This record gives sequence, structure tokens and C-alpha cells, in this order.
Amino acid sequence: MLIVHASQLLTVPGPPQRGTRLGDLGIIPDGALRIIAGRVAAVGKSADLLRAYPQDEILDAGGRVVMPGLVDPHTHLLWAGDRAAEFEMRLQGKTYLEILQAGGGILSTVRATRAASVEALVEENRPRLLRALKHGTTTIEVKTGYGLETQAELRMLEAILRLDAELPLDIIPTFLGAHAIPPEWRDDPDGYTAHLCNEMLPAVAAWWQEHAPARPLPCVDVFCETGAFTLAQSRRILETAKGLGFPLKIHADEFDNLGGAALAAELGAISADHLVATSQADIEALAASETVAVGLPCTPFGLAEAHYTPAKAILEANGLLSLATDCNPGTAWCESMQFAIALGCRYMKLTPAQAIAAATINAAAAIGRSDSLGSLEPGKQADLLILEVADYRHLGYRFGGNLVDTVVKGGEIVCE
Amino acid sequence: MLIVHASQLLTVPGPPQRGTRLGDLGIIPDGALRIIAGRVAAVGKSADLLRAYPQDEILDAGGRVVMPGLVDPHTHLLWAGDRAAEFEMRLQGKTYLEILQAGGGILSTVRATRAASVEALVEENRPRLLRALKHGTTTIEVKTGYGLETQAELRMLEAILRLDAELPLDIIPTFLGAHAIPPEWRDDPDGYTAHLCNEMLPAVAAWWQEHAPARPLPCVDVFCETGAFTLAQSRRILETAKGLGFPLKIHADEFDNLGGAALAAELGAISADHLVATSQADIEALAASETVAVGLPCTPFGLAEAHYTPAKAILEANGLLSLATDCNPGTAWCESMQFAIALGCRYMKLTPAQAIAAATINAAAAIGRSDSLGSLEPGKQADLLILEVADYRHLGYRFGGNLVDTVVKGGEIVCE
Repeated sequence: MLIVHASQLLTVPGPPQRGTRLGDLGIIPDGALRIIAGRVAAVGKSADLLRAYPQDEILDAGGRVVMPGLVDPHTHLLWAGDRAAEFEMRLQGKTYLEILQAGGGILSTVRATRAASVEALVEENRPRLLRALKHGTTTIEVKTGYGLETQAELRMLEAILRLDAELPLDIIPTFLGAHAIPPEWRDDPDGYTAHLCNEMLPAVAAWWQEHAPARPLPCVDVFCETGAFTLAQSRRILETAKGLGFPLKIHADEFDNLGGAALAAELGAISADHLVATSQADIEALAASETVAVGLPCTPFGLAEAHYTPAKAILEANGLLSLATDCNPGTAWCESMQFAIALGCRYMKLTPAQAIAAATINAAAAIGRSDSLGSLEPGKQADLLILEVADYRHLGYRFGGNLVDTVVKGGEIVCE
Repeated sequence: MLIVHASQLLTVPGPPQRGTRLGDLGIIPDGALRIIAGRVAAVGKSADLLRAYPQDEILDAGGRVVMPGLVDPHTHLLWAGDRAAEFEMRLQGKTYLEILQAGGGILSTVRATRAASVEALVEENRPRLLRALKHGTTTIEVKTGYGLETQAELRMLEAILRLDAELPLDIIPTFLGAHAIPPEWRDDPDGYTAHLCNEMLPAVAAWWQEHAPARPLPCVDVFCETGAFTLAQSRRILETAKGLGFPLKIHADEFDNLGGAALAAELGAISADHLVATSQADIEALAASETVAVGLPCTPFGLAEAHYTPAKAILEANGLLSLATDCNPGTAWCESMQFAIALGCRYMKLTPAQAIAAATINAAAAIGRSDSLGSLEPGKQADLLILEVADYRHLGYRFGGNLVDTVVKGGEIVCE
């Protein structure tokens, strides 16, 4: 198939775009793209590809932008229940304690998710994934972390694999048993840390060998934050996971600068995420590594907080910056990477070009898939969007809607 | 037709909800609504209406919220061209002057709009209105104000009337010849003010008599702000308009507190809009009047500014508060009232219930239509939404997407 006459074909060339290189969209005006067997076979000017491949079936994208599918590299999209009542209580001025006493907070989502079967999780989460797809996300990371006990976490992994098999999106799973201290370990966080290392991580590795031996192991992630896991506990969990062969991720510095970003760099994690309270030294440690910094602007937006990931400092330090939604039921129920881009422009002062590269090639790097995804270059998976606009800058400039006209995944139109 | 089994039927009862009454959604669980000839004929429990009207055609809204269609009472949705390049320049750190020199700013939209035919305006703006409709807006105010000369302003009015006739939305026009000082009057704002009063307003009244004699006159609006129209110029324009029989609106206190809100109250304007820098005295003057305060949270969001309309102070003073998108190409290209609600909750600290009432019954009041629109009460126009969720609080709680499943306008399904 030939997609032709894109007003702008954004190739967003790899490798992942570091520092001030971020924002290289590799634009081909009146661009065309050839797809063979689900992969990009060629890109170029429409006139050239039309002449070279006169027999190909044509999809005319005239007057519209063609760009790589959006990659969302950080979500907690799989959960049961909702926290709409808690949102309302916050606006009524209720305190954190009153909300907890009313059964709110992350542990309310843990209760609901523990009680859900794999089938129930699949049913409840399918519409969220389809909403992400409709808004242009063709690959999405989804974390566990509302089970916080072995069997409930494994049910979440199973639901993720089932949804991945069923839906056109690629779903990249991450094990986040270290999302919070579960209620039964409330007074013994070191005990839960040991349990994670000695029981849960090996159980996940064994389960994976049995259920998905052909797939790479999921990432292991830790919420390194005051009130969740200390730096020492985070190190213990991540080092154990690394020893078992898991790729690593970390939630760091959402509220406090505990040193999680530097730990991620030291251990060769593929990403360090949130990074709001990160020190300049930790920014530099990250930038000197291959670890991708993932900004999650929907979260401070969801909480109406003033502080966002310091994108400029990360880019000036020559770091790798990406964007994600952080879609979750507590602080940011948002499936749209387009909205993360709009926030990245306004609150992280990224240009539309930088935000788009952060949401495609660099987001693919943040899930370890930039070899096969995130750009429209020969050999890459043909995951792409046709926007309803002629100029890519409308992403970022406009907000609250959906500019995606057509979604192509692996060479097939899956949404239009 | 009977719409039955709404998880929550939100009637949002009138009259417009003043002060702390804001947020009365009049919720009927397992609710039903009867439509006859495009109007609400009855509301009640599903069991009761099913028993009372066994012959009616049934639309099952089981498990989903049914609520009044959203009313967007302040938009500049009709324009030609776009300002994506200007958005990018701002993010690249270009100054206001550099942007002006590169041809940016409101006058670039004026140039493009003056050059557009009525047909071109209709074509370019239809998709925006359909996007608003898809996001649940069933009635929308649209201002002129990118013509700034008689003929170009009349072409905008004509385009608005054509789109109103063609599309299922009700479009309420407003004449905003006093949007900015046009370039040819740059050195003589008093001269343009006199021209508006002596030539343009009478021309609009005469044109209206000829082209839409059966419709109420459009509102006349003024941008009372530093750099636009002074308080004295605003008074002169509004008093002249009032003398000609036009209902009045005002843009006041977006950046500076010039006294426009109090002027609106004094002259009996139907709304005063923006209201960010409004003084407590002006809030109290507004609250003592029938003038509706319209918060436009998409605008500070679009500009990443920290200050929003002080909703709490307006409600504590017993004022009438509404929400709108302010959709425009410079600061807030957003067609979604759902997003205005999400912002109203986060940045104006409204509860979802308050934001919904502000976006329905009170928004109808802000365009002088609360007698016929904005609530689901017998006799009102059957403009309603079926959401894809069971709990109205998901509006506000969630963001970046679209929770509208079905749009019904005047009793007809127009979008699903």
C-alpha cells in the first residue's frame, strides 16, 4: 500500500532524539509512504513513490499530516472501580484523612482490583484501550500494581496479555508490585520489600516462562517516593529484578527528591518517570545515561499543581525526554497522548515538534522498543496516524479534542 | 419517545441557579424522560413513565447518565486561517513584538477573515461546530469580531445564520464589532467607537430586519480591556446598542480591572465574561444584578496563566455563574465544554455538580435562553445527552476525551 500526498509526512527519525536534537520531525512535504507486510518499506516524495510503485494500492492522505502512531510509555490503565466520589470530596474541601476514612485513595482501587476476575478486568479496561487507540495511541505500556499480592498481580498480567492479544494496540506490560505498601504489610514495609524480592519477583518470572515464553520479560518498576518505597528499598527491589533478568523502570521525584533518578541511571533502567522534584545533579546523572526521562504532565494537571517536569533542564543537560499520560484512576484519568502533548507545550514549554518526538520515537525508547517503533523509517512497524489537519503544529496548539482521522497499526487501518 | 433507565437523569432544574444553590442537578435515579414534538413532556421514575405511556417508542439508556445538552455561551468560533505558527513562536521564546512583526496576533485573523467569502467561512467553520456537537454542545453562542468593518462583520453574521439553518445545533449570534481597534483606526480609537455607534450598529440592526426579522436581535458585545476599548468607549457602545434594542454582553477584566463588570450590571447586560481581575466590589455589583458571570477557563489554560475566574467569591456573593469555552484561534482553540468543566473543577474549584449546572441551565441564562433551554423540565426543548458513564461526576473527574455517547437535539438523535 502507498499512502500519498501527506501535506507533511513526519518521519521523526531515530535514534532516540537526545538533548537539543529533540524535535527533528524529518518532514517530507507532499510525502508518501510504502507499506509491505505491515512494515514501512519506503518513504519519500509522492511523485517519486507513485512513479516507482505504479501497481500499489493507494490511500490518499491529501491535505493531511501523516505521522508515527503515538506511544504511551507510562500508564496504570488497568484497574477496577473508579474514584469519582473521591475527586468530588477533594473539591468539597475534604482532607486527605477524611477521604481515606471514607474508603478513598489508592487502596480503594487495590480492594476493587483484587476482587475482580481476569475476565472482569478485561471487560472493564477494553473501552479505555480503545479510547487511547481512537486518540492515536498505537502502543501503550500498562502497569500492574493494584494487586499488591502475587495472585492479584498475576491476574493483572494475564488481563494485560489477553487485551494485547485481542486488540490492535501493542500493549507492553510492566510489573509494579512495588506501587504501594499493601494494607497487610502496612507496619512492615521492609517485610513487604523482602516478600517482593523473595517471593513475588521469582513468581512473576516463573509465571512468565509458563505463559508468555516467547515474549521479552515485562519491566519491573518501583514507586520510589516518600510514603511508598525508600531509596534503599527501591534499590533492593530493582537489583533483585535485574538479577532475574527484568528490564527496569522507576517512579521518581513526583513530590520529593529521594535519588531515584540517579539510581535508575546507575542500574541502567530504561526509564525514570515523573521527575518533578529532581535535583540538577540527578538530571545530569540521567542525561549521562541511556535512561529515558518520562514527563507525565497529566498528573500535575489532574491535581492542579504548579510544578511540572523541568524539560528545558533535561534537554540542556543532553538528556532523553519522553512524554506519557500516566493514565490512572486517582490523579489523571486521561487516555489521550494528544492531551499530554498539549500540556507538554504549555507547562513544560516544549514546541509542538519536541512534544511530538517525545511522544513517538523517544516514547518508544522509554519502553525499549525504539528499534521497531516510534518513527516512519524503512523496516519499522507501519504504525501511523493520518491527522485531520495539514500542519503538525495543530497538535499542541489545540486541546480538548481529537485530531486523529485514521489509525493504521501494522499496516492495517484499525480506526477511522 | 420515552428515554428510560438512565442511571441518573439530571434535570438541573431552573430558574438559573444563583450562589450556593448552584449544583442542584435534580437527580432522578433510574430516570425516564418523555419527549413529544421535540419538547420534554414528562420526567420521572422509569417504572412510572413506562406504566403511564405503554405505547411510546423506547430508547434504553440503561447504566448511563442522561443530562441536558451542554450550552456554550461564549465562543469566537467563526474565523478564517489559524495561528499555529504563532503558538510555536511563543514556545520558542519569541516576544509579542516579534510575533506581531511576523504578522501574528488577532489582526492576522482579521486579515484572513476579511478576505473570506461567506461560503468559505461556512466551509471552514462547519467542522468546528460539528466537533462541538459531538462533544455534547447542543446550543452555542458565536461572535463576530474578526471583520471589524461593516461588510466583513455582516458576512460573519450571514455565515452564522447559514450554519444555524444547516446544522442541528442552535447557534446564537453576537455582534462583536468592538473586539479590537482595526488597523485603519489604530490611531483613533475614539473615531472607531463613534463609527461603531453611528454606522455599524445601525447597519447591523437594519441588516437584521431585512435578513432575520423573525429572530431576536443578536447581542452586542464589547472587549473592555487595556489595549482594546476603555470603560468610557465601552459604555458609549453598549448604551447605543441598548438604545437600538440589542441585548448586551461584555468582555471584562481578563487582564485588568477597568470596571466592565459593574457597567454590565448597571446596563442590565445578560452576561459579563472572563472576570479574572475583577474586584470584590464589581463581583458584588454583578451578584446584585441579573447579569450572568461567565468564566472562560480554557483561556488561562491555553496561555498557561495562573489566574482563573474567582468562582468561590462569585458564588459567596450570591452571583449567577456560568462556564464557556471561549473557543478562538489565538488563546484557546477548544470546542469541548467537557474540557471547560474539567478545568472549572480543577482551577475554579467547582464540584462536578456545580460545573454541570454552570454549563447547562446557567449557560442558557448567559445567552438569554433559560426559559427554553438548559434543563430537562416539562416544556423545555428536548436537547439532551446520553453519557457513556453511570455517574455524572465522571464529567470533571476525567479529561482529554469525550464521554458523550448520544446527542439528542429537539427530540431527534443527531449524533451517536
